[in-house]
Amino acid sequence: MLTIKYDGFGFHGWQKQEPPDAEPLRTAQGVIESATRRAVREPVNVMGASRTDSGVHAEAQVAAFTVEEPRIPVDRLHRAINRYLDEDIAVTAAREVPLDFEPTWMPDRKAYRYSIHNALLRPVFDRSRLYHFWYDLDLDRMNDAAGRLVGEHDFESFANTAHGRESTVRTVFACGVSRMGERVFIDIEGSGFLYHMVRIIAGTLVEIGRGHWAPEYIDEILESRDRRLAGPTLEARGLCLQWIHYPDEALRIDSGDDSSP
Amino acid sequence: MLTIKYDGFGFHGWQKQEPPDAEPLRTAQGVIESATRRAVREPVNVMGASRTDSGVHAEAQVAAFTVEEPRIPVDRLHRAINRYLDEDIAVTAAREVPLDFEPTWMPDRKAYRYSIHNALLRPVFDRSRLYHFWYDLDLDRMNDAAGRLVGEHDFESFANTAHGRESTVRTVFACGVSRMGERVFIDIEGSGFLYHMVRIIAGTLVEIGRGHWAPEYIDEILESRDRRLAGPTLEARGLCLQWIHYPDEALRIDSGDDSSP
Repeated sequence: MLTIKYDGFGFHGWQKQEPPDAEPLRTAQGVIESATRRAVREPVNVMGASRTDSGVHAEAQVAAFTVEEPRIPVDRLHRAINRYLDEDIAVTAAREVPLDFEPTWMPDRKAYRYSIHNALLRPVFDRSRLYHFWYDLDLDRMNDAAGRLVGEHDFESFANTAHGRESTVRTVFACGVSRMGERVFIDIEGSGFLYHMVRIIAGTLVEIGRGHWAPEYIDEILESRDRRLAGPTLEARGLCLQWIHYPDEALRIDSGDDSSP
Repeated sequence: MLTIKYDGFGFHGWQKQEPPDAEPLRTAQGVIESATRRAVREPVNVMGASRTDSGVHAEAQVAAFTVEEPRIPVDRLHRAINRYLDEDIAVTAAREVPLDFEPTWMPDRKAYRYSIHNALLRPVFDRSRLYHFWYDLDLDRMNDAAGRLVGEHDFESFANTAHGRESTVRTVFACGVSRMGERVFIDIEGSGFLYHMVRIIAGTLVEIGRGHWAPEYIDEILESRDRRLAGPTLEARGLCLQWIHYPDEALRIDSGDDSSP
């Protein structure tokens, strides 16, 4: 299992894209897979936990692969892979997990952060990681609204209609808005997220923070299960996958030779 | 007088470079001057306070120009210029100053910050603004050494030998080292700085922080007036011009029609 950090600016998202009649696009999965193949000298397939969109960043994406013959000790693996990676992506950790570990379906919690540069002038530094919004944002209103998202809800209104999921019910464990100088951060933690869900939630909280809608309007949006009632999908550049959590059982390796005394 | 912020990554430094037989290089001065000309519709010359090197950043560079006919009120000028600028540079403020204001020679204080990513793994975000140094740095030692630079000294040892200045005596008002997580910042404030002076000071403090030299060695380097005794010139990417201060008299406009009652 690899933990991977990347600056989404230079990637067409996480997922490999190899159009039949064209050059493959530069994706995080593609780059990690080819670096891993070179490091372990085996044609491995690297599967990721979250399909981040083009331009979305990751502090800690999770991915996994299986080798036939482990040539590199796991504690040296991340450095071996990093040798074949460009500056905008790095493996930050590697660990052994059970053979049946499945990064995509096993997480029980994920966290995202949406970052806004809230000032009249556009950001010059970190501009590929910030959404620029120049009107005043009222954080009390935004936090009132954010609190209403916590719990198990049908988030259909907050998903791109092309989400392709059978169930749109998810649990949000926490959602809060904070300010540090000119930066406003929306942090959200949940059981899982639908297509564009965090960016639509961010767009809705911004509409509430600027005074267009009342915080209570969140309840109405949730109930409607109608995407058209929620706010706009904010730009990908502000979004960052912060961490992914797995239940202990998913990661525990039974040593096998442990017998009771 | 303009205050200008830029990400040095995409610039060949501040100063205009127009090679006779080639395309002009992209410089901050060149870009600001052409945007200002378009905004004020006059062929102005924009003079800057500090010639930052290629890759060096600025939170607040200062520059100035004179117009024959002021078509745009000064409080709207920075937005007018920003319309013609790319995302990696912005004018953050504009103010009227006396006609004899001269940005290059009048500052009485300038401040620079050198930023280090002090961790085993290379930085993925902000990587064009950080120097990566992976060995442990002892901040007590670095601060002991930094304090020895404060005062009026001959900084010949801490200047690139091509500095081209008659006097290498400068006053450092403050120099300190701080840590925030994996980041180490060297902040220095002085009457002025010689060519590469901050980057050589940073290189010397890093040698002391990693344990190669004693903090007291700073005194010996200063006394020697020999560049070869000081540490290496660290990469441009870690350096940022923070602010430039002018004496009140340089900025004061005598209104002229003020007569005693």
